[in-house]
Amino acid sequence: MTYPKASNLAYVPFVSVDNMMQLVNHIGLEECMRELADFIEADFKRWPEFDKTPRVASHSHDGVIELMPTADAENYGFKYVNGHPKNMKEGFQTVTAFGVLSSVSNGYPILLSEMTILTALRTAATSALVAKYLAPKHAKTLALIGNGAQCEFQALAMKAICGITHVRLFDIDPAATRKAAKNLSETGLIVTPCSSSEQAIEGTEIITTCTADKQSATILTDNMIGAGVHINAIGGDCPGKTELHQDILHRSSVFVEYPPQTRIEGEIQQLDPEFPVTELWKVMLGQASGRTNADQITLFDSVGFAIEDFSALRYVHTKIAGTAFFEKLDMLADPDDPRDLFGMVNRRS
Amino acid sequence: MTYPKASNLAYVPFVSVDNMMQLVNHIGLEECMRELADFIEADFKRWPEFDKTPRVASHSHDGVIELMPTADAENYGFKYVNGHPKNMKEGFQTVTAFGVLSSVSNGYPILLSEMTILTALRTAATSALVAKYLAPKHAKTLALIGNGAQCEFQALAMKAICGITHVRLFDIDPAATRKAAKNLSETGLIVTPCSSSEQAIEGTEIITTCTADKQSATILTDNMIGAGVHINAIGGDCPGKTELHQDILHRSSVFVEYPPQTRIEGEIQQLDPEFPVTELWKVMLGQASGRTNADQITLFDSVGFAIEDFSALRYVHTKIAGTAFFEKLDMLADPDDPRDLFGMVNRRS
Repeated sequence: MTYPKASNLAYVPFVSVDNMMQLVNHIGLEECMRELADFIEADFKRWPEFDKTPRVASHSHDGVIELMPTADAENYGFKYVNGHPKNMKEGFQTVTAFGVLSSVSNGYPILLSEMTILTALRTAATSALVAKYLAPKHAKTLALIGNGAQCEFQALAMKAICGITHVRLFDIDPAATRKAAKNLSETGLIVTPCSSSEQAIEGTEIITTCTADKQSATILTDNMIGAGVHINAIGGDCPGKTELHQDILHRSSVFVEYPPQTRIEGEIQQLDPEFPVTELWKVMLGQASGRTNADQITLFDSVGFAIEDFSALRYVHTKIAGTAFFEKLDMLADPDDPRDLFGMVNRRS
Repeated sequence: MTYPKASNLAYVPFVSVDNMMQLVNHIGLEECMRELADFIEADFKRWPEFDKTPRVASHSHDGVIELMPTADAENYGFKYVNGHPKNMKEGFQTVTAFGVLSSVSNGYPILLSEMTILTALRTAATSALVAKYLAPKHAKTLALIGNGAQCEFQALAMKAICGITHVRLFDIDPAATRKAAKNLSETGLIVTPCSSSEQAIEGTEIITTCTADKQSATILTDNMIGAGVHINAIGGDCPGKTELHQDILHRSSVFVEYPPQTRIEGEIQQLDPEFPVTELWKVMLGQASGRTNADQITLFDSVGFAIEDFSALRYVHTKIAGTAFFEKLDMLADPDDPRDLFGMVNRRS
């Protein structure tokens, strides 16, 4: 990736919420998630090249604020993201986010982007990418338990990337299910609203849980899960927040993004720190097995990792080139003489 | 600190470089650093209330990119900052920065600000605040070794906060010294350009080193330092980057911001991890001794800590209220129904 010359370096391209929505609609939501999944897959396949660290979390009574940095030899990226389950009732988003991509060679930011929408897209694209590797062959039906802000993106990504045709919805709040069913009504998916988790998972090959309670919940119990399914557990993503009964984990082959982070935040926080897990990048490179038989329960213990955000920022940076879907932000002081910051400030008066 | 109601929450106040320069000049540079020092001192005096962590650094061949987060019960703040010594020769700033202040209760950002200028201000304000506690009484003369972007801010902060009247300048590049002398010519300070470090420190009570080489340098050797001075060592601020010969450290009382970070990054990285240091917040609260006699060498091993940036962001957030020194940035997705992110994106097409 190249960056502009010094004269333009005071200005950082900024993708606002409105520009992100226009960009996504310009590309098309399904195409956008397919392309995003390609970027994520490419970066997973060069996993050892990245500077990796568990995200840096600041926990408070009502939620968490996190920074998620990573870098390769050329670019550095980070995301700021919060998670506040109580927000929804107060009219705020549970999760909001923004991120920055920079040039490693001089440390200058080359992109500032909203990432509330982009996180929803990359999370769904990652789920579908992983399901492409792990779900039963020719899976057609998806259960979506938890019909909040992430739900429809999950459905469309699984359609675009895995060929899902049927979606079964359940949420403890029927209004959330109605909202999701309405939003999905013109996507070509066959949508069935359900009145319980048990009903939602009937006959499905892929089960996605994306609920938001900041506590240990049991969205799925052991007796609900038969053989040969793929579980995509998204909601359990911080310490003390899980969705699955641990007996399910013991019956499953568990796949994770970055073990040092997932052991703290994921479903496997319930288990011994030595519990065996497989890293997804190794499956994608053919260095580890994915699904090995039709009866196997595969489980993606998804918590979201910085490399997915890095891929998403890289994708947006590529897509906005030559378009009008960004503004230029006067974010970096750029005095004519780089040592004369004082003179620059002084002369502005 | 209060934050706007939901209807305004899509918009984050943004202080651009130009607005920061206007704000600083509107307040007046010296007054600005006095006020900043007051905010920093207030936050140092409630040190145990903060969620603290060493900064998260990503090192590369040419420099470093760092995230510096901290939080109290009400606000969360972080700064993005790079350090690339080679940048200057290529026409870029060695250090650029920006930062965000958020509400802990819902995780929403309430301020995005440029921090290249603000970092220069807070670093100088912190140096002068610390010198107010540690320098010899009635100190009037300051040596500034390293006349880059930080130099003039240091001089003015020491004037505004400690009553310094004379400044002696040295840099290995005479052009840098000429630049600084010219910038300081109308500030009321009596400025003496010098041709060596030895000459610069003659008769000074406070010695500030702020050079930028990313390596172990020896800007000050042991025989240069007499009794009864205060040393403000700014430039040694990452692993492998120091400015002082270690014999000076052994003769000094060493004061630091946050020991877990300074032991990795500061001058004391040269010493045993058990080398005794005093935390500045304890001196400010009267819980530890500062300067106890006139012959003592006091040394502030400054690396810059997240709480100083938090204070600076809090200060800017306070000062822009009711002014025109900010824009509103469409940075947060804010659908009418917080669960209907998909609908919001879809309806934009």
